[in-house]
Amino acid sequence: MSDVKPFVLDFDLVSGFCTSGKVKPTQRRVSDMVAQFANETAARAMVEGGDPLLYEFYGLDLPEDDSGVLQFGTTILYPGKVGEEYFMTKGHFHTILDTSEIYYGLSGHGMMLMETPEGQVDWKEIGPGEALYVPGRWAHRSINTGTEPLVMFFVYRGDAGHDYGTIEEKGYRKLVVERDGKPAVIDNPKWKV
Amino acid sequence: MSDVKPFVLDFDLVSGFCTSGKVKPTQRRVSDMVAQFANETAARAMVEGGDPLLYEFYGLDLPEDDSGVLQFGTTILYPGKVGEEYFMTKGHFHTILDTSEIYYGLSGHGMMLMETPEGQVDWKEIGPGEALYVPGRWAHRSINTGTEPLVMFFVYRGDAGHDYGTIEEKGYRKLVVERDGKPAVIDNPKWKV
Repeated sequence: MSDVKPFVLDFDLVSGFCTSGKVKPTQRRVSDMVAQFANETAARAMVEGGDPLLYEFYGLDLPEDDSGVLQFGTTILYPGKVGEEYFMTKGHFHTILDTSEIYYGLSGHGMMLMETPEGQVDWKEIGPGEALYVPGRWAHRSINTGTEPLVMFFVYRGDAGHDYGTIEEKGYRKLVVERDGKPAVIDNPKWKV
Repeated sequence: MSDVKPFVLDFDLVSGFCTSGKVKPTQRRVSDMVAQFANETAARAMVEGGDPLLYEFYGLDLPEDDSGVLQFGTTILYPGKVGEEYFMTKGHFHTILDTSEIYYGLSGHGMMLMETPEGQVDWKEIGPGEALYVPGRWAHRSINTGTEPLVMFFVYRGDAGHDYGTIEEKGYRKLVVERDGKPAVIDNPKWKV
């Protein structure tokens, strides 16, 4: 068992920000993900033009070796595009692959793009009041297809771990881009077997 | 691994009700918990007077033998009192005692009353935007101390299980009652060692 006592943290139901003042979010900018966008030239130009913030998320200081612990927090993913590709998170598998994750949409609109190591792909729209079950084995990346920040409350097992490397190396099989003013899911030309 | 595919369910961010139309909540009335209220005479009179609904909660049809699965849903706990004791949930330990639970307050105001088998007791207020970490080993009961339904989104490990029996038999060490118009935590006169 872990010696963690009950505690409460405030996460604003609209903005997603933790207002308890104890926890700072991790921030990711375009410069952290240049190679993961289809249009790297557009990404590099955005980095030179001010390197906008893509998203922020909270990770709590909880034990990472205890399967009875649950990690929780919010992700705040800003609206915007790199070329025709919407702002997105890095996306990851869990290191303990068979562990799931729950997302609960608080504000904004977007999509969760998911795939398994065996090549199954799926995507779900997520908005306010929509709870998404990401089963174990499914890599998951959030994509903001709207005009407001996409804010989601998340929970996953404390020992699940994050495998970002597989996605960084191989990319996702699919991309979400704007076509005729609407989101479209297309094959990723940079995807490597 | 469990063969569950990604899926989305709508849980209204204020009322907590699942609007996807697929899932029905479990309902608990005063008649389901007469012996757990301090004032059983008042509880029996309420049962005869119409047996009001205390709370409703969702449980999804997910595998219960897989530590990689997460169960999620909402609890809707109505305002009211039995004698001077606020409406509350049965409360439970997890059968796999060392598994935690996350509650995220959506609307209304209340309290989570918690205790360990070793006799530690704790309670936390919970309201909109407040995320509560209930560590493994802590039995937990929600209490509505307000005038609106207390609505919370919850997540726990799919194999955690519910041990209601220990609480039904021994009771909680503490009660939450209204004193001078305000919530007060007092010793439970019916608690058995």
